[in-house]
Amino acid sequence: MFESAEIGHAIDKDTYDAEVPALREALLEAQFELQQQGRFPVIVLINGIEGAGKGETVKLLNEWMDPRLIEVRTFDQQSDEELARPPAWRYWRLLPAKGRMGIFFGNWYSQMLQGRVHGRFKDPGLDQAIGGAERLEKMLCDEGALIFKFWFHLSKKQMKNRLKALRDDPLHSWRISPLDWQQSETYDRFVRFGERVLRRTSRDYAPWYVIEGVDAHYRSLTVGKILLEGLHAALSRPKVNPDRVSAAPLPPSIDQLSLLGSLDMSQRLDKADYEEQLITEQARLSGLMRDKRMRKHALVAVFEGNDAAGKGGAIRRVAAALDPRQYRIVPIAAPTEEERAQPYLWRFWRHIPARGKFTVFDRSWYGRVLVERVEGFCAKADWMRAYGEINDFEEQLSDARVIVVKFWLAIDKQTQLERFQEREEIPFKRFKITEDDWRNREKWDDYRAAVGDMVDRTSTEVSAWTLVEANDKRWARVKVLRTINQALEAAFVRSDKQDKKK
Amino acid sequence: MFESAEIGHAIDKDTYDAEVPALREALLEAQFELQQQGRFPVIVLINGIEGAGKGETVKLLNEWMDPRLIEVRTFDQQSDEELARPPAWRYWRLLPAKGRMGIFFGNWYSQMLQGRVHGRFKDPGLDQAIGGAERLEKMLCDEGALIFKFWFHLSKKQMKNRLKALRDDPLHSWRISPLDWQQSETYDRFVRFGERVLRRTSRDYAPWYVIEGVDAHYRSLTVGKILLEGLHAALSRPKVNPDRVSAAPLPPSIDQLSLLGSLDMSQRLDKADYEEQLITEQARLSGLMRDKRMRKHALVAVFEGNDAAGKGGAIRRVAAALDPRQYRIVPIAAPTEEERAQPYLWRFWRHIPARGKFTVFDRSWYGRVLVERVEGFCAKADWMRAYGEINDFEEQLSDARVIVVKFWLAIDKQTQLERFQEREEIPFKRFKITEDDWRNREKWDDYRAAVGDMVDRTSTEVSAWTLVEANDKRWARVKVLRTINQALEAAFVRSDKQDKKK
Repeated sequence: MFESAEIGHAIDKDTYDAEVPALREALLEAQFELQQQGRFPVIVLINGIEGAGKGETVKLLNEWMDPRLIEVRTFDQQSDEELARPPAWRYWRLLPAKGRMGIFFGNWYSQMLQGRVHGRFKDPGLDQAIGGAERLEKMLCDEGALIFKFWFHLSKKQMKNRLKALRDDPLHSWRISPLDWQQSETYDRFVRFGERVLRRTSRDYAPWYVIEGVDAHYRSLTVGKILLEGLHAALSRPKVNPDRVSAAPLPPSIDQLSLLGSLDMSQRLDKADYEEQLITEQARLSGLMRDKRMRKHALVAVFEGNDAAGKGGAIRRVAAALDPRQYRIVPIAAPTEEERAQPYLWRFWRHIPARGKFTVFDRSWYGRVLVERVEGFCAKADWMRAYGEINDFEEQLSDARVIVVKFWLAIDKQTQLERFQEREEIPFKRFKITEDDWRNREKWDDYRAAVGDMVDRTSTEVSAWTLVEANDKRWARVKVLRTINQALEAAFVRSDKQDKKK
Repeated sequence: MFESAEIGHAIDKDTYDAEVPALREALLEAQFELQQQGRFPVIVLINGIEGAGKGETVKLLNEWMDPRLIEVRTFDQQSDEELARPPAWRYWRLLPAKGRMGIFFGNWYSQMLQGRVHGRFKDPGLDQAIGGAERLEKMLCDEGALIFKFWFHLSKKQMKNRLKALRDDPLHSWRISPLDWQQSETYDRFVRFGERVLRRTSRDYAPWYVIEGVDAHYRSLTVGKILLEGLHAALSRPKVNPDRVSAAPLPPSIDQLSLLGSLDMSQRLDKADYEEQLITEQARLSGLMRDKRMRKHALVAVFEGNDAAGKGGAIRRVAAALDPRQYRIVPIAAPTEEERAQPYLWRFWRHIPARGKFTVFDRSWYGRVLVERVEGFCAKADWMRAYGEINDFEEQLSDARVIVVKFWLAIDKQTQLERFQEREEIPFKRFKITEDDWRNREKWDDYRAAVGDMVDRTSTEVSAWTLVEANDKRWARVKVLRTINQALEAAFVRSDKQDKKK
């Protein structure tokens, strides 16, 4: 994989000087076009051997292009805010917006390679990380991002010479790399695992470019030309990609049976039972959230449901059990301008709670496979791939000990009608009913089908859906609270076991 | 100040039960109206004696109102990201957006009171903090925010009884306050310093409300009614406040002398001198940024200037001296939707660098007293108060060892014309010239007057303006670099001295 990057590529100064002005001008033009179109972000990943010119190249790109449209990001030591959340959170929070370019030093590849080289995990751990990177990049590309991955390479001998030269040059000695790089052992392991990573993550949508790093002219010109060509290709892509992928069909529904149809909608609680059970479950939740094992977890609760199914009321009963300092309720409405300039899941990642905290999403990332699907706000290909992306997302949360609980509050059509009418009559509830609600109601069957698919495709071992029979509000509220409590208890037991094993 | 909150206010249960439903409904209506108008945020500060019902009241407000429109924020331990920035940054980053309500526990008042009670500083330190709080709140209110400040009070005897009762109640014992509260000493000091703080910071635009905390009915109903009344008053304020304050006139210019006029615009450097000095200053900057004393500082450089004065080119020469991982360039254009939902300075606060880092603002917060003033984008009252707010802002940066360097790049009218024409002819520069630029040029004299006032009012000992004669780009670039270097060196010397004193 690295052979052709150890053969001494070089460009003489005259050729370089002759080519650079036109390249630079073209890069500036492309960058301007990128900003004007504002259709996609560019993400440049910088990896490779120490001393192979990574830093110099990034510096040069900043000189050649307009640095005001470039963000250089480093990911060294994690901050405590980052340590309290899933590992990918730090990358999500620093993604460049559409029209801009983000250069990521010390990205997910450096993290996995460092981990493997220093023995913090073995090959299975590395392969897991590789899989995560693949899924992340696939998702970013599907969302339109243009990704360049550069591996700056040197042979072992070249590296030793280079580090020695840098060390001896007083102007550059500050750049000298960490000591362990000067040992051959590290080089060998780094290259061996690097090969595995590159082999597995070089994909048509985000290929690796291995750049020989010895000659500055060669490596600069090569990187510049790759960037330019990639930018040109992406900038001239057609504006609308109607159905880029031929989305596979969903299984047809050929009988009348459905998960929602199988719910016993007559379940109810009388007032006395309700009050007793509510208080019991609230006290239980209050205690669990104060359990010291909660410090190792975070909690995310997703509330979806028919309009007027009682999401707000259920959320309030959950909140009432808690110290307001511990939870946050995030109502999901139309995305803001900054959110629209990012991949779909960005606006949810930004609200992921730190360890010990609880975030309630009042509607959620499932909007893509519900309202956006039914109303045609996004292409079929986009909501079809969302099932997989959402499963990946929730798995990352789960891996980081974020407990995810998901509720679909279901009511029947008649109950909804009665609640709509009631809301229109009560003054302080009238703001809860809009024309949209009446319009959505006309698409009852479409939503029902979408909910069915959603549950089939995203109710997983990692994070199951709970369907809540919500014709009776009391029943629904108690079931919601009880489900959260059970999830917390199960998670505490699981992590007790894991901790014991260690 | 606290006498009338120690007399045993109480409301019987029947009265309470009779009043709450209507109050609750009215609060919900007001909250909905707040969201619909989206004109201003509500900030509720919660302070006072431990055990006086702070937490319970916040919990109750979340139950009474729609918790999806409320954000409860706590400010306990600072995160390392917060510790690396000026103290106010943590409050700015969590301000509620227009239309929403933020409840701040553990706010700036708790911080200053804890500091004083535990002897981390004396009265002068407390008074400084008080002054900072006053300026912050005045600015927030001028920007439209509605601020409620609640002090929950108990007499010493009441507090002791309350803490004892809580401790003995197994359902509440987890709420028990830190041990030091159970000592009378702390109570006395807390109340004494609290009085000083309340006296000094109770202002017409953000008064304190002292609430006796013994009786839950009394304190809940009182807080609810104050919130409701305040919300009603604010929601019915006229939509446009043309000139709320009668802005004092600026001093007239009665002769032809001006600071900009006194610049020697013929200053220039020939090519050889330029190249030598540029390299010298760049190497000096590179060294200073790697100086270990830089770890205690951050650097902010503001670039303002006539259109086509060469801001971009000067910024690139600064960037060229640095490791791209160390600096960030923030181009300031029209604010985003999320930025428009916040006070004016919010969008600059969010980019304040952490210690050791450098942020370049390509245009800045001075937009308010330049383009917004000249183009009439904001009322005179708004840009007039901006001078003071900006001085406060920069003083906070400076106090936190953020070095602020500000440049006005000045060219004369003829030079600008030549550069505009040149830009229209060179392909890769054509995106740098727009119709706006030609339009702005027609207001040359207005901008000149605005720049004069800006420099007079915001060139301070804490953060001086550097006027840069930029007809000759070489001269300008070297002067910019040299000025930054001098500022860094001076700051290092200053902090060496401060550290020696300690």
